[in-house]
Amino acid sequence: MIVEISVVPIGVGESLSRYIAVAIQVLSKMGLKFELNPMGTVFEVGDFQKLAEVLEEIDRSLFESGSPRNYFVVKIDHRKKGGKMEDKVRSVIQKTK
Amino acid sequence: MIVEISVVPIGVGESLSRYIAVAIQVLSKMGLKFELNPMGTVFEVGDFQKLAEVLEEIDRSLFESGSPRNYFVVKIDHRKKGGKMEDKVRSVIQKTK
Amino acid sequence: MIVEISVVPIGVGESLSRYIAVAIQVLSKMGLKFELNPMGTVFEVGDFQKLAEVLEEIDRSLFESGSPRNYFVVKIDHRKKGGKMEDKVRSVIQKTK
Amino acid sequence: MIVEISVVPIGVGESLSRYIAVAIQVLSKMGLKFELNPMGTVFEVGDFQKLAEVLEEIDRSLFESGSPRNYFVVKIDHRKKGGKMEDKVRSVIQKTK
Repeated sequence: MIVEISVVPIGVGESLSRYIAVAIQVLSKMGLKFELNPMGTVFEVGDFQKLAEVLEEIDRSLFESGSPRNYFVVKIDHRKKGGKMEDKVRSVIQKTK
Repeated sequence: MIVEISVVPIGVGESLSRYIAVAIQVLSKMGLKFELNPMGTVFEVGDFQKLAEVLEEIDRSLFESGSPRNYFVVKIDHRKKGGKMEDKVRSVIQKTK
Repeated sequence: MIVEISVVPIGVGESLSRYIAVAIQVLSKMGLKFELNPMGTVFEVGDFQKLAEVLEEIDRSLFESGSPRNYFVVKIDHRKKGGKMEDKVRSVIQKTK
Repeated sequence: MIVEISVVPIGVGESLSRYIAVAIQVLSKMGLKFELNPMGTVFEVGDFQKLAEVLEEIDRSLFESGSPRNYFVVKIDHRKKGGKMEDKVRSVIQKTK
């Protein structure tokens, strides 16, 4: 399944980049291949349990970094027959030509 | 943590209510207290693993009901020191008076 | 079209209810019928321009209330042939019986 | 303001890439600089009215392409003192080093 998460720590001031960096480092340490964009981070996971582990670790790391409240927006795209993140972008780009 | 999920089965036609009903029944069977609104369903869960179980069961049920692709939008609000869904609405309403 | 907005002022501390109340009062003053839930507010608008007016007014009011940065999550459900917010919930509930 | 939109036409089958391509072409024709990712498209707009024009044009184009129902997820990040999409990613990457 393909996932995008946006992480918004609440109560740490206006600048969030230090906290987003913490989240990114969690993904890195967990060995996930991810794509950072200006509004979120996209990655693939095998199942919902793995996704929960990722979110749990980010949540814990943000609390440890001083955030008192974490807000997440998570989009999940799950096809019965698979579907890869590279294919989605490639497929759209081909059709714009 | 307080969670809102929106479930969008893709590839089952324009009317989704039959599938949303399937998702709602999963929440019911799992004993969760939830609030259905026109754009999603709000409930509380203890942790990310429990949330994963809920999503996994909805995902599986939708595939079984004929959906070939499930799209989810999940918002999560997690406070280090708790936070209840009734309190959020009550707190806002008090401040509008 | 049916819309849900979640408003997250960033840089105003951990408690957001005072700011959500400001957003709710904007909807009220604009004469919109809305439903507040613990994770967002659902309402109907006739078109995207009207939605923009609503968001603009909330955004401006939050800046005036002291928020230096506003984060919004907006879901929009637009059917070519209409669709009312009451009908969505009623239709799902009927199918869970 | 920085915006991410995810476009989900409902009732057109399982494969959506043809429709996402339509949305992308709207952004292109409107002269917006955008970044396509596997779960959405990120771009900058000056104000909410401009965002409404973009959404309206995508909505109309999708209806014309055969979609009977359009679902959008829109995230908006608006700072009182500006904020550029390149800066957000750069700022995070610097802090992961």
